[in-house]
Amino acid sequence: MKIAILGGGQVGQALWTTIHSEKETILNILGEPLEIKRVLVRDLNKKRKIPKEYLTTDPNDILLDPEISLIVEVMGGEEPAHSYIKKALEEKKFVVTANKEVIALYGDELYKIARKKGVDIAFEASVGGGIPLIKTIKEAMAVDKVKEIWAIVNGTTNYILTKMEEEYKGFSEVLREAQILGYAEPDPSKDILGLDTRYKLAILSSFAYHTTIKPPDIYTEGIDKISLRDILYARELGYKIKLLAISKEENGEIEVRVHPTMIPLSSPLSSVNGVYNAILLRAEKRGDVLLYGEGAGPAPTAMALLSDILEVGHTILYSIPRYYTFAYLYPPKLKEWESIYTRYYLRLWVKDQPGVLAQIAKILGENHISISSVIQKETSEKEEKAEIVILTHKTYEKCIKKAIEEIKRLPILEEWGSLIRIEV
Amino acid sequence: MKIAILGGGQVGQALWTTIHSEKETILNILGEPLEIKRVLVRDLNKKRKIPKEYLTTDPNDILLDPEISLIVEVMGGEEPAHSYIKKALEEKKFVVTANKEVIALYGDELYKIARKKGVDIAFEASVGGGIPLIKTIKEAMAVDKVKEIWAIVNGTTNYILTKMEEEYKGFSEVLREAQILGYAEPDPSKDILGLDTRYKLAILSSFAYHTTIKPPDIYTEGIDKISLRDILYARELGYKIKLLAISKEENGEIEVRVHPTMIPLSSPLSSVNGVYNAILLRAEKRGDVLLYGEGAGPAPTAMALLSDILEVGHTILYSIPRYYTFAYLYPPKLKEWESIYTRYYLRLWVKDQPGVLAQIAKILGENHISISSVIQKETSEKEEKAEIVILTHKTYEKCIKKAIEEIKRLPILEEWGSLIRIEV
Repeated sequence: MKIAILGGGQVGQALWTTIHSEKETILNILGEPLEIKRVLVRDLNKKRKIPKEYLTTDPNDILLDPEISLIVEVMGGEEPAHSYIKKALEEKKFVVTANKEVIALYGDELYKIARKKGVDIAFEASVGGGIPLIKTIKEAMAVDKVKEIWAIVNGTTNYILTKMEEEYKGFSEVLREAQILGYAEPDPSKDILGLDTRYKLAILSSFAYHTTIKPPDIYTEGIDKISLRDILYARELGYKIKLLAISKEENGEIEVRVHPTMIPLSSPLSSVNGVYNAILLRAEKRGDVLLYGEGAGPAPTAMALLSDILEVGHTILYSIPRYYTFAYLYPPKLKEWESIYTRYYLRLWVKDQPGVLAQIAKILGENHISISSVIQKETSEKEEKAEIVILTHKTYEKCIKKAIEEIKRLPILEEWGSLIRIEV
Repeated sequence: MKIAILGGGQVGQALWTTIHSEKETILNILGEPLEIKRVLVRDLNKKRKIPKEYLTTDPNDILLDPEISLIVEVMGGEEPAHSYIKKALEEKKFVVTANKEVIALYGDELYKIARKKGVDIAFEASVGGGIPLIKTIKEAMAVDKVKEIWAIVNGTTNYILTKMEEEYKGFSEVLREAQILGYAEPDPSKDILGLDTRYKLAILSSFAYHTTIKPPDIYTEGIDKISLRDILYARELGYKIKLLAISKEENGEIEVRVHPTMIPLSSPLSSVNGVYNAILLRAEKRGDVLLYGEGAGPAPTAMALLSDILEVGHTILYSIPRYYTFAYLYPPKLKEWESIYTRYYLRLWVKDQPGVLAQIAKILGENHISISSVIQKETSEKEEKAEIVILTHKTYEKCIKKAIEEIKRLPILEEWGSLIRIEV
């Protein structure tokens, strides 16, 4: 079986090395040798672990070669990766990719082409690095029904939140350190603002609910507004703050959102620290299944790609029915954002004078929000302002939104702090 | 494709129901309808969800029926399940089983027969209920290399340890409650003494290291000697006590053991509570992968069986090379128990008199064991005895064993408490 790799970066090189060092195992699994015929690169002269005679800068050397039955895309980014994948499928080549942007944005289009041409596209490596997430959803859950997904799928933001809590440091300070250590990109906005997490949730949810969830369908908040104060209050209350990707299916309606979330210490997700990723699947029959592991890095990613290559290889060599293409089947019925029903944490600075808490409590009450607990610490009289933290019982997003608007108009408000959703 | 089920208990009935309710999905996946032709039961007249015309009490109705290509065994226990599975393989039938005893004890024998006859045997449901453990080791780790396994795979003992800690209750009291609630068997010895965990570790390790690990190869201690005092000391020191199944491969030597273990709160296994199961795989390339979920119950077990049925179904229908049979390949080189190298927690009661700690410390020192911390609480003078807790740095099992023998001979020893291994 002859394959080609689009991209000769770290992941491409790790894949090259593994395929060559594990030749015999691969032969046992596939029943045929696996040969990498060509690798597409931008610059032929860069130092690489791949011998020069395999390199090409012309995508057509690969996309139009009838000997190549499977293409592995590890270039990253939206274009030209998307066009190359599309072309490959049209040429009846199977595709394995690590590209979350392309799958999140064009998954439905690419699947349609793949089905029409009788080929398949696999992308285990696009979410969760070396953790077999897609495989578990596709296979273990194939006859079950995923009802909820709760996931930490961005290493950078999880690293920052963990470090803030462990070292009592502010967001910007930890971000700077993470950039120096290589855990955050020079332009970290995609991670910090939750956009990377959103791509991944779009992919996971499309698969889990057999539908098409696109990134703009997902309400998204990043961690850029999370302060050390919030993290320390959370700890005091027995919670951790994590950037969660959440989706649920109930009565055919799908709820999808990405935002910083307070989760109790009893939740298995609360102990997922540093650059680790984890996904909790709540299924109808299997119950809760959680998968945890390294969410990134060339070696784990190469392993995920290789798993896909072997699986797709079986499809190619033994003509198994292509049952995995069950994402993007039905149009989604999305739940309205304002009808989300959950608990909330509010933090705000108010004038330190009598009757202040009563004014806030009144607004919450009028909006049908009931308070579960309040923290107000003693302040020195000099400060003239006090910080209040309120935890609510479950309520609707539209109620909390309206209440906050009203609170923000109160003359006693000195400074708005934060709103964080609480989940169990 | 026609199959038969050996066993009409709760799991058999759950499987029957799922196969019928998910007919269409199964057809999509297999490319052919799946039909249950017969179910073997002991008593035809017991009330069941399975129509009577499908039942039989004669195993030969199934084992000798040439139309049946796959047999699902859910009877449990060693015999006659083992003989039936053996016969089925000899008759060139594929086998899917949930039977941990049979696989742990006869896995190598059954595999040999399966290979000779060109069929396969699958047993995802034998370990970890609805968690896709075997699948992950077989597939995700197929081209990787598992180096270590750290697992909580017995719900009963994990439930007991969790309850002891949460409710400050002793072992026997929690065990009685667990029996009433159905979380522990009327005869709980297999769970409590670690034998169930040992079966499961034998299966997982045989697969992970491509070798044959039999239950007697595994050093095993149960939780029957764990007292509430140990659990509370562990908590004070920042640890939890869990019954862990541990195996490691290093330089071709395999270390396998089951015993109560102190693990730090920072370990992801420390938050696995109640009847949940979890397995941490440490792999060469993927790094750490942890899987967590419900370890038992008819619905999750039926799902695991069905995953196997569909996978084996593909093998049968599309003649894929049977690459999954890579357990039981090489004879194991087992590490000697006494050369285990780890940290230890010791608890003992001594006479409350001067120089006592010095005598114990001297023995430890002479045996090359260095102390990492000591707790000795104030006691009232009336008591005349004091409790000492010692945590050691890493040392060899043979050193600690010798030291404890010597300590037990000291006249100042009032009562030996416990020895618990500490792992990170």
